[in-house]
Amino acid sequence: MSKSEVKVGILGYGIVGCGTYQVLSGNAEAIAQKLGAKLTVAKVADIDWTRQRDVMPPAEVQVSDAREVIDDPEIDIVIETIGGTRFATNFVLAAIDAGKCVVTSNKEMMAKHGQEILARAAAKNVDVQFEGAVGGVIPIIASLKESLVASRLQEVVGIVNGTTNYILTRMTQEGKQFDEVLKQAQALGYAEADPTADVEGIDAANKIAILTAVAFGLRADVDRVYREGITRVSAEDIRYADKMGYVIKLLAIAKRGEDDEVELRVHPAFLPKAHPLASVNGVFNAIFVRGDACDDVMLYGRGAGSLPTGSAVAGDAISSARNILHGAAGRVPCTCSGSAKIKPIEDVETSVCIRMRVADKPGVMGTIATIFGQEGVSIQSVIQEASISDQVAEIVWVVHKSPEKRLRNALARVEALDIVESIPSIIRVEG
Amino acid sequence: MSKSEVKVGILGYGIVGCGTYQVLSGNAEAIAQKLGAKLTVAKVADIDWTRQRDVMPPAEVQVSDAREVIDDPEIDIVIETIGGTRFATNFVLAAIDAGKCVVTSNKEMMAKHGQEILARAAAKNVDVQFEGAVGGVIPIIASLKESLVASRLQEVVGIVNGTTNYILTRMTQEGKQFDEVLKQAQALGYAEADPTADVEGIDAANKIAILTAVAFGLRADVDRVYREGITRVSAEDIRYADKMGYVIKLLAIAKRGEDDEVELRVHPAFLPKAHPLASVNGVFNAIFVRGDACDDVMLYGRGAGSLPTGSAVAGDAISSARNILHGAAGRVPCTCSGSAKIKPIEDVETSVCIRMRVADKPGVMGTIATIFGQEGVSIQSVIQEASISDQVAEIVWVVHKSPEKRLRNALARVEALDIVESIPSIIRVEG
Repeated sequence: MSKSEVKVGILGYGIVGCGTYQVLSGNAEAIAQKLGAKLTVAKVADIDWTRQRDVMPPAEVQVSDAREVIDDPEIDIVIETIGGTRFATNFVLAAIDAGKCVVTSNKEMMAKHGQEILARAAAKNVDVQFEGAVGGVIPIIASLKESLVASRLQEVVGIVNGTTNYILTRMTQEGKQFDEVLKQAQALGYAEADPTADVEGIDAANKIAILTAVAFGLRADVDRVYREGITRVSAEDIRYADKMGYVIKLLAIAKRGEDDEVELRVHPAFLPKAHPLASVNGVFNAIFVRGDACDDVMLYGRGAGSLPTGSAVAGDAISSARNILHGAAGRVPCTCSGSAKIKPIEDVETSVCIRMRVADKPGVMGTIATIFGQEGVSIQSVIQEASISDQVAEIVWVVHKSPEKRLRNALARVEALDIVESIPSIIRVEG
Repeated sequence: MSKSEVKVGILGYGIVGCGTYQVLSGNAEAIAQKLGAKLTVAKVADIDWTRQRDVMPPAEVQVSDAREVIDDPEIDIVIETIGGTRFATNFVLAAIDAGKCVVTSNKEMMAKHGQEILARAAAKNVDVQFEGAVGGVIPIIASLKESLVASRLQEVVGIVNGTTNYILTRMTQEGKQFDEVLKQAQALGYAEADPTADVEGIDAANKIAILTAVAFGLRADVDRVYREGITRVSAEDIRYADKMGYVIKLLAIAKRGEDDEVELRVHPAFLPKAHPLASVNGVFNAIFVRGDACDDVMLYGRGAGSLPTGSAVAGDAISSARNILHGAAGRVPCTCSGSAKIKPIEDVETSVCIRMRVADKPGVMGTIATIFGQEGVSIQSVIQEASISDQVAEIVWVVHKSPEKRLRNALARVEALDIVESIPSIIRVEG
């Protein structure tokens, strides 16, 4: 411990970069006391310093070229908060090549290029830490890599996208439809003008791919994550869920079987109200983990936002600074042992809730139930409410766990029946 | 990284020691892969090897004298799972003196002798880790020391005692009284024959003292934690709480003011049903943290049990093994900057729910409300239900936050009134 100061450079002064700077500068004294050395933000690179942010670093710290940070021999840790893969990946690789420890909050980069980045880091014996990439402030990556590392984990289920959780929460609390709440979320800044990455589950897919690698030690191709968004979830689905004791959440799920085959999926799901994830509302995120020794563990917090994510990024920087001060950079390297063998969605077994509109006449329920039975799909519960019109009734079935392909066969036959008008929704049941 | 093996010795083969051994031996291959070296349990010391446990280590690993572990030059890490302070403290100090890293799940020892132990560890440049001492498997200590370290924490509120949470949960779900549920908990092994340490909040006080030190960097004398147990919580209190939108939980609370003065208290409390801690039921524990940048974070899991706590202890051992392999033992030392200035309970401001039995006649509520007002205690809500008998009515008041001493003055005057028969319960309101 000869060094009395560790220097940090930040690439990208957007929402997370600014939050990180605020935390590191605002709490500098307490951090120095805990670290036993000063942790100084020496340079911040951004291409646009004319735009005003909540807090601006002093002019002498501002630079316009990321290479000024990466090439500075005095800088020990490079924090990447640019986001995306266009520039960030090359900057991060260059920083590693220059022997810097790297901290990033970039989920897309880690999901798509994590393997290359971590391999390069291992070769150069430096840290690459990415707590802020999944669940914002939630200490899930560190917990999976350290505190929970002794357990064999079987299951990771997360609410990892704040925008969709906010939308579903308001739909639940106010009985409103998706389109209306989305518009309000956009007006409030909780959803982007183009909400595709959030509402279609693309963001959550990146995050569950990262969690799979860290929790199971198995790399997963993000393009192979099965994905359904929330755009088709309706107020009626939520109402039926409530009546049956469930809430609807967008879940990112990774499950490892005995054979190490991994289920990887992002979709809306019915979740029992007593499940710890069921009461995670609004923009909050939570990640639920189940393992052989640790049993059920859940971590909850803000999944986004300048200061919460900045707090996670700053925490990683302090961790790397501790490693640097002890000559222990690269202390926790990538622990992947190989690639995940992903179970095809057709073979995944889930329980499912199916809402259908049928002709309101005798014998209909029996006909449909018979088809389910013939296809080996067993019924757990069924609700038929008062008829929607003279001719049409709505039936909601919950079927026991069965392989997806069996269910699809049954539903294809059911949908072809004259007595079935439509199947407005098919939502899996978890928990 | 020249070593290819790190050797561990375990002191005490009780519930946690056995769980730790099971995790380290059962998941040895995966742990070695993640660590890059073998982590071997070389010796386990216990005074009684005749008693049969779920899993027994091989005979050649069993020793009867703790000194055989402490004095073994091959052993790098000593795991203390004896509990209590009678033997454990001296063994731990001896292990540190012998240059070993120490992992312990001993809350009482860390609460009472943590300062001495951590100072000795700093002098010898070894780790002392104690994740299993608070909240069992919940990764709260590591998260406070690493991931959340960049935030200035203001508040730690925990459900950190599984026995009392189990009792209160069953009282809530079944409407039963404390004594009846306690007896059942004892029969099921969820409560000790002498339940004092749990039901009087002594166990929780040890844990909140440890959390205060780690979260705020301020050492706290466990004897100065204000403490009320759950023995006087009744089914009626829980029923009123439910009616008003609350649950009753035994909370361990540490709050730091702007002036660094710390509130430290363990007591039953009304908690709004929407609070993340409110749905933590049965033997589960959870710790809620609030900080300037991280905002609200909650960690949830099993607070006790052989394998969950063993998983936490094993996680600490792997962390220390990583430090040893990188020559970085002592990487995260004690970060206390001084002792907590504890706010006297008389000055603590809380909202309180008061249930009183009064004469069922006109003017009573006005007389009492007037006294509250004269003493500067402001009323938030009041419920008067149907009379209990011809002469007696029950009134439940919730008063706004006010200093404890002001409330005590008001209640002393109210209790002295002829029209007040009794005040069966006074319970703080949190969240």
